[in-house]
Amino acid sequence: MILTVTLNAALDVTYQVPGVDWDGVNRVTTVHRRAGGKGVNVARVLAALGQDVLVTGLAGGPTGQAIEADLQRAGLPHAFVGIAADSRTTLVVADSPRTALFNEPGPEVTAAEFGRMTGRFTDLMATAEAVVISGSLPRGVPLDAYATLAAIAAEHGVPAIVDADGEPLRHAPGGRPSIVKPNAEELARAVPEGGPEEGAQALRGRGAESVVVSMGAEGLLAVTPEGIFRARMPYKVEGNPTGAGDSLVAGLALGLVERSPWPERLTRAAALGAAAVAAPVAGDFDRDVYADIHPRIVIV
Amino acid sequence: MILTVTLNAALDVTYQVPGVDWDGVNRVTTVHRRAGGKGVNVARVLAALGQDVLVTGLAGGPTGQAIEADLQRAGLPHAFVGIAADSRTTLVVADSPRTALFNEPGPEVTAAEFGRMTGRFTDLMATAEAVVISGSLPRGVPLDAYATLAAIAAEHGVPAIVDADGEPLRHAPGGRPSIVKPNAEELARAVPEGGPEEGAQALRGRGAESVVVSMGAEGLLAVTPEGIFRARMPYKVEGNPTGAGDSLVAGLALGLVERSPWPERLTRAAALGAAAVAAPVAGDFDRDVYADIHPRIVIV
Repeated sequence: MILTVTLNAALDVTYQVPGVDWDGVNRVTTVHRRAGGKGVNVARVLAALGQDVLVTGLAGGPTGQAIEADLQRAGLPHAFVGIAADSRTTLVVADSPRTALFNEPGPEVTAAEFGRMTGRFTDLMATAEAVVISGSLPRGVPLDAYATLAAIAAEHGVPAIVDADGEPLRHAPGGRPSIVKPNAEELARAVPEGGPEEGAQALRGRGAESVVVSMGAEGLLAVTPEGIFRARMPYKVEGNPTGAGDSLVAGLALGLVERSPWPERLTRAAALGAAAVAAPVAGDFDRDVYADIHPRIVIV
Repeated sequence: MILTVTLNAALDVTYQVPGVDWDGVNRVTTVHRRAGGKGVNVARVLAALGQDVLVTGLAGGPTGQAIEADLQRAGLPHAFVGIAADSRTTLVVADSPRTALFNEPGPEVTAAEFGRMTGRFTDLMATAEAVVISGSLPRGVPLDAYATLAAIAAEHGVPAIVDADGEPLRHAPGGRPSIVKPNAEELARAVPEGGPEEGAQALRGRGAESVVVSMGAEGLLAVTPEGIFRARMPYKVEGNPTGAGDSLVAGLALGLVERSPWPERLTRAAALGAAAVAAPVAGDFDRDVYADIHPRIVIV
């Protein structure tokens, strides 16, 4: 089983509203509600690839119940730690081609709740083959939370991938995760000096075993104990980049579980990332694009 | 106990978003979630006035659970009939002074579910002193639903108030309700010929015992078996008119229960409506405004 951790689980809501009146009354023509957060998206991709997954993290209130109900409907096993506060909703108001995104402040987590989270996480190490820890932190959770979780995984011999930004990314290497996966902008913010390769080496110097940097249509850079690899994309896939990083991370997690060599795991991760761009909803990927692009990715 | 019926219960969500970017990412500074729908607002006002209330109607899905959880928090007794579909959310995006309202299409109700609703309503007639039936109908509910419920109330000798618009308003008098409460625009749509007094008489001719027409700052018109009365407001209250009609209806319901003479019940209803305009949230009213305006309302 691959465990995905989403400390700031969300209900992703999309409103289709043709011709929005931003100072009046609008009839929403279509509503979509779906459990979200980066770890949830990773789990969707892994499950679609036939992999056993378990979704954990923090969820609470009526919105947390809605998140769990959607995972139930999707057949995704989950074991959230409950919190008293209401989980966040993200809202997209789509008035094609314009799209407004609204991010709620989200819940405040207590120290006791995060303590229960680390306890649950530790218990789950007995059955996890790999762990994916990704996304933003809710308020109240320590900024080194991902380092803490990665360190617990390392103690249990479970490989961990961390996909984070800002302070959580800066702290992550301290937990000695197997892979840290920033995109190029996130890496540049975390390590302002030098280019992507220097940044990746800096995170390795702080404790990360490998660093994979996603660079959009320019592919991937992996700095690993086996060497430095770059995945070059044969063409640019047009579409919705939201969720591409999560699909890519799902590919990396499969590689960890299968202990495949870096060039192979990087190829699959790059193909899954590109195939997610072709799918309209985060957590999905386009199987045709995946099949087409996978054999044409070049590793150098 | 006064029973309020909300067939299309809603979760009313308000996002404060200073400086909305309608084609970008927005951080919501404040989120309010509150059970809504006109019958819920009426119950809030009645409860604030110390009256025993019970909220019923149709609610389902995670949003229905959120509605019930909020009523629980507010200490408002409720006995909703469950539906399979998810209840609707209304969203206000407030970027002062601009305000965009988004109305979801809402649930589709099955015939069996509405059958359970009429059954529950009939059972509750044993303990209800008065009934308030108000708001919109969800899809799937017959357009004469309010007439059906009012007729059940009449059979049990329970006075009923109907506050509706469109087809439900046109059908309502057929159930012989004690009071039908349209506003001036709703009445003009239901009875296009003549003014408010002629429209009110027409609804009485179709079966309504009394008709109260709300006319905003111009006060109220009541056409009743005791005669025709007008409530004149001493001044215009500035604020948010959403929910003013619900507060007014709460006043009328109290009058029914107390069997007070029409001039007295009209004065209280008009004062509660005006006091609700002074409160920022539907379902609340300003007690100072109520105390100030009540003795200055003139009935003619």
